[in-house]
Amino acid sequence: MASETVLLAHGSGGRLTHELVRDLFFRHLSNPLLEVQDDAAVWSVAAAGPSRLALTTDSYVVSPIFFPGGDIGKLAVCGTVNDLAMVGAEPLYLTAGFIIEEGLPLADLERVVASMADACREAGVRIVAGDTKVVDRGKADRLFINTAGVGRVPSGVNISGANARPGDSVILSGRIGEHGLAVMSLREGIEFSFPLVSDCAPLNGLVSEILKSEGRVHCLRDPTRGGLATTLNEIAGQSRAGIEIQESLVPVSEGVRAACEMLGLDPLYAANEGRLVAVVAPEGEDAVLEAMQRHPLGREAGVIGRVSSSHPGRVVLETAYGGRRILDMLSGAQLPRIC
Amino acid sequence: MASETVLLAHGSGGRLTHELVRDLFFRHLSNPLLEVQDDAAVWSVAAAGPSRLALTTDSYVVSPIFFPGGDIGKLAVCGTVNDLAMVGAEPLYLTAGFIIEEGLPLADLERVVASMADACREAGVRIVAGDTKVVDRGKADRLFINTAGVGRVPSGVNISGANARPGDSVILSGRIGEHGLAVMSLREGIEFSFPLVSDCAPLNGLVSEILKSEGRVHCLRDPTRGGLATTLNEIAGQSRAGIEIQESLVPVSEGVRAACEMLGLDPLYAANEGRLVAVVAPEGEDAVLEAMQRHPLGREAGVIGRVSSSHPGRVVLETAYGGRRILDMLSGAQLPRIC
Repeated sequence: MASETVLLAHGSGGRLTHELVRDLFFRHLSNPLLEVQDDAAVWSVAAAGPSRLALTTDSYVVSPIFFPGGDIGKLAVCGTVNDLAMVGAEPLYLTAGFIIEEGLPLADLERVVASMADACREAGVRIVAGDTKVVDRGKADRLFINTAGVGRVPSGVNISGANARPGDSVILSGRIGEHGLAVMSLREGIEFSFPLVSDCAPLNGLVSEILKSEGRVHCLRDPTRGGLATTLNEIAGQSRAGIEIQESLVPVSEGVRAACEMLGLDPLYAANEGRLVAVVAPEGEDAVLEAMQRHPLGREAGVIGRVSSSHPGRVVLETAYGGRRILDMLSGAQLPRIC
Repeated sequence: MASETVLLAHGSGGRLTHELVRDLFFRHLSNPLLEVQDDAAVWSVAAAGPSRLALTTDSYVVSPIFFPGGDIGKLAVCGTVNDLAMVGAEPLYLTAGFIIEEGLPLADLERVVASMADACREAGVRIVAGDTKVVDRGKADRLFINTAGVGRVPSGVNISGANARPGDSVILSGRIGEHGLAVMSLREGIEFSFPLVSDCAPLNGLVSEILKSEGRVHCLRDPTRGGLATTLNEIAGQSRAGIEIQESLVPVSEGVRAACEMLGLDPLYAANEGRLVAVVAPEGEDAVLEAMQRHPLGREAGVIGRVSSSHPGRVVLETAYGGRRILDMLSGAQLPRIC
């Protein structure tokens, strides 16, 4: 009888590896480029003038691997799709590297891979190359996944964390902290009357709508690990500009607020996996907002602040009570293994 | 005082992550694309007609992470460079994802990253995107690295494991099993009078020489996990052709032979990280051999067998004693965590 769990031999590169690839990975992720089974996938780039490509990677070590609203597989696809989208690239192809702890039920692996296939369909990307390693029991924690991705940057698009200019509007696509608190509450075994569900989603569709609008987008970034506060600090640092945010304009659900209070966390530092920050030229603010609000993932989009010429490199938060304080980058490890 | 080991907070995405990136990763891997620090690296593709790109990935979980002839970092760069080279692609850009166990000495991490930088220089590639995750002590084994790579396939190059044709020559670039037995002997604490040193090396330079020769190359593959026997089976399977190999023509060093005997292993299944198999049209055999032998990594290159029209999908070994047997793909896990 075939094994019901992952064995060390599944990572040997020999017969069991090939069977796992054929019977599990190909069954869910099948596409012509993947099935060639050479050492690398090869595709043709059309020669319609010079073009720009984007390349990114992330590893995923979230614990637990299944959580409300997603799992490590969905996260691994969405996270890399989103990193491509944040430079304005249309995601084309992904790679997937699996590091599996011996003993992981094959049914769990299959559930994760099926979820990756769903996320790929939703985002319109394909996994064209992969790798499977197995380490002995106790030498990893169930499953780690790395994805890398290649995308194409449409001509005329020039988006970077370094492009924020004083006067620009800072737009946030929706409520924050849902992913971080959903995972954290599950891990800590805390239940709330408000259901906490990860916001994990591919953002390339939303970005495509933003780029089609009349608005001029300077920066896009998804506030994942480190949360909104860290992302804003990155933009302020790269652009050498100040950012001023009004706390009352940053949407936080009652569930996240309650969970943050109980766990002693700040939603401004909690991870998101389906939200984005857009820094746009002020005259295009309305156009971008309208485009975002028409998209299911941007319905709650709103302006949360502005780029300023004072305090370059710093983020200043105007609190709900009218005070002002420096909003620093995350220090310490508020939410380990959140993605 | 700054920590001397990796902390969970180094993977938080916040201040310590940024410091680690700036003070360690950038110091060794610095290049303009990496330093942009957006969510993805962006580069321009020249528009000199249509072109083909290649994409691949591998994760590395080798244990121990330092071994004679290399370390997990060199392996991670060479492995992905080699996977690109095996479809005839010139490697361009790599990504690197680090999964670090809390408590890893920063000096060890730095040694690995410096070694990656050396391997990148040797191969002529750059790491343009990266990611760092830290998991709690006991949830990983020191350090795992994933690399993905993008390369450009020169026009006219058409190399695939599916292209072997009856009559083709099977060329091997050098002695086998050096990597697998170097790591395995170290792990088992066995010392030999013959020094065992991993063959880990970037093969793109050797492939470039092969492609410049008059010979017509049908397949290239590096016999890593699963060894030469598994690689030949992959080619036979993809090409639906038979392969006949003469054991006496396959070079094995005295050190590898002795270590294999002591450990009960077969060099034909032992991992290599700097060897390649080339399947070439018979009329180009001499040209390819000469090109390989002129290169430092191909000095010992020789023909080890031939593609045949009989027993399609199978590899047959003619033993040193004149017997013939089916050489199957690796089954079981002869050498876990060898790469």
